[in-house]
This record gives sequence, structure tokens and C-alpha cells, in this order.
Amino acid sequence: MKNINSSVDRNIINRKSLLAFSSKPVEKVKLEIIFEAARWAPSSFNAQPWRYIYAGKDDKGYQLLLSLLFDSNKEWAKTAPMLILSITEMIDIKKNRINRFAFHDLGLSTANLILQATSLGLFAHPMGGFNESLAIEIFQIPNGFKAGAIIALGYPGNPSILSEDLLKRQTAPRVRKNLEEIAFKGGWKGKRSEPGS
Amino acid sequence: MKNINSSVDRNIINRKSLLAFSSKPVEKVKLEIIFEAARWAPSSFNAQPWRYIYAGKDDKGYQLLLSLLFDSNKEWAKTAPMLILSITEMIDIKKNRINRFAFHDLGLSTANLILQATSLGLFAHPMGGFNESLAIEIFQIPNGFKAGAIIALGYPGNPSILSEDLLKRQTAPRVRKNLEEIAFKGGWKGKRSEPGS
Repeated sequence: MKNINSSVDRNIINRKSLLAFSSKPVEKVKLEIIFEAARWAPSSFNAQPWRYIYAGKDDKGYQLLLSLLFDSNKEWAKTAPMLILSITEMIDIKKNRINRFAFHDLGLSTANLILQATSLGLFAHPMGGFNESLAIEIFQIPNGFKAGAIIALGYPGNPSILSEDLLKRQTAPRVRKNLEEIAFKGGWKGKRSEPGS
Repeated sequence: MKNINSSVDRNIINRKSLLAFSSKPVEKVKLEIIFEAARWAPSSFNAQPWRYIYAGKDDKGYQLLLSLLFDSNKEWAKTAPMLILSITEMIDIKKNRINRFAFHDLGLSTANLILQATSLGLFAHPMGGFNESLAIEIFQIPNGFKAGAIIALGYPGNPSILSEDLLKRQTAPRVRKNLEEIAFKGGWKGKRSEPGS
């Protein structure tokens, strides 16, 4: 596996859901490059359902974004110099029905964002743990859109700022299912995930 | 914009939803690297909901995958040396409820797959236009999983194999919403998409 791993794109391998951020702000030009990457993702019928609300630590909106997070995320995400809320348009306007790819295509765009951040020496950590209906309400996002994730963005900080538990989490080895559990030749060979797996 | 564009990761810029594929098969080792990239995506609670069924042109399953596509996709995708069906696990097994990130995280994984393919000189074109319930039925995929996309994978072929309409589609410039339409500082500044936009 090591052999294959070494052939994988460095941004994919170096990407990590970091917990300790430096206070160094994200440069405006880097942020623009990151959103430019997100912008060029493919999407079903080129609908581009993705939207992003972002705020640096001193910007209007940052404390709101932070307040939406579950405590378990707030604990570490408060060190992030930039928070980004991802949003997706649920309606297929051409067909006047739900776009079943709204979340899928938001994921395609967000992966671009994350990998571009990695490529620029930054880390982007997407979180699902936040109050998504409150996010829609608090930012007065119109009907037809849903909140995706809140993404913490910044440069790596000194891990010593982390609690013992968080430090353990940040330094734990990344684990994944085996390749044979996710990619099947010619037909279905999968199984359901088991609790705790 | 040109300036910013030139700073974006080459795989993101070079990625293209190609229509004309060469008959050259996808090397086994490259396919493995591509799935390895997909494997390392982040996911909510590391649930890794993504699964992939793949088949090369002479493999069992290829004709089945091709038969699932809408005619408008079949027309060009039949030249792809490899077809991949993406699938996602809808259940959050730890919480015994729907995983609202099932499609989002499938998107994160599929973006890795697509960018890794690009990095290896291949092109991956995801399609939403196929019979997704028949896909589940025909491949006997158990309850709790949904079909995502069918992805055509291969090397670029001679565009002269395309019909006039498809050639026009393949050579059309890539268009996207402006950055200001998708990324907002501090609060919501978006609007709904309009038909034909």
C-alpha cells in the first residue's frame, strides 16, 4: 500500500483535519485562489449549487459562525482564523424539482476548496457538527438552500494549545476502510458499515 | 481572473468532462491509485460512505453500467474504456439515522478520484443522467445505499469520433458563475439560480 500511496497526489495525502490553528490570518489572495478552485468543480447540468459564506476572525459573521458549532467543535475551531459555511441550492431550477445532486456537487466543490487550501500550505477542516437550521435562519438564507458544512481554515498552529484529548485526536493515525471494502470489480461486493467500524 | 486562475492547482484547471475517449484501456495500477485517492477523502465522523463498482470494456458489468445511462449519455460514454458507478451509504450507523452527509461526502471522495485521474493523464466524467433505482436493483445493492453517479474514465480520444453536436459540446468554453455569486464575506449575498443561467 505504501507504494500506491506514494503515487497519490500530494495534496490528497497531505490534507488533514487539523485541530490546532495558528493565529496567522489567511491572506486575501490565497482565499480568492481557494474559492476559485471551488468554483471550477463539475456539477450536474452545470447547476453549480454551491455557495460559501466566509469570515475572518475580526470580520462580521465570525462569531455567528462560531456560535453555530457544537461545543465539541467550538472547543478547537475557535482558534481558526477563518470560518466558512457551505450552502447548497436544493432546487433543480430547469426541471422544477429537487436536485438530487445538491449535496454531492457541494462535496465536489468543497473537495476542490480543501485540496487547494492544502496546496497553499493551509489546512481546511470541514465539520458536520453544527446547528444547520439555525445557520439558515441566522444568515437569512432564502428557501431552497440548505447548509452543508462549516469549514475551519488556517495555518497549522502549535499543538501545545490543544487539550490532551484533542492532541491525541490530532496526532492519531488516519484510518480508512481497505480498498477492497470500497471498490468492487464488475459487481457489488460490499457490506453495510458496522457500528464502531 | 487570469492571474488567479494561474495559481489554481493544475489538476483542478485541467479537469474536463471529456466526451471523446480513446480505446486505450485504463492501466490496473492507475486505477488502483485513483481509488486510493478516493479512499483518503474526509467524511463526517469518518463514516466513509462511498463505494464504487467499476468495469472495463471487456469486464462483466460494463454493459450493465452502460445500459443504465440515459441515451444522451450512452451516445458518447460507450467509447469510455472504463465505467464506474458511485454508491453511498445513507445510514449513520452510530446514530441509527440518515447520514445527511452521505451524498456530500461521496462528492468529496469522487472529487479526489476525478483529480487523481486528471493527475495521471486520464479524464473522469461524472454523469447524473442514469436510472439510479434500476442501478440499485440490477447490482443487488442492499437497502441503505443509494446510487450517486456513473463516471466515464479514460484517455482522451480523437474528437472526430464525435457527432457535430457532441463536438460542439466538448469544445465549448467552460463557464461558471462569478466568484461574487458564490462566495460572500460576512453574510448571505446570494440569490436563487434562474432558469437558463
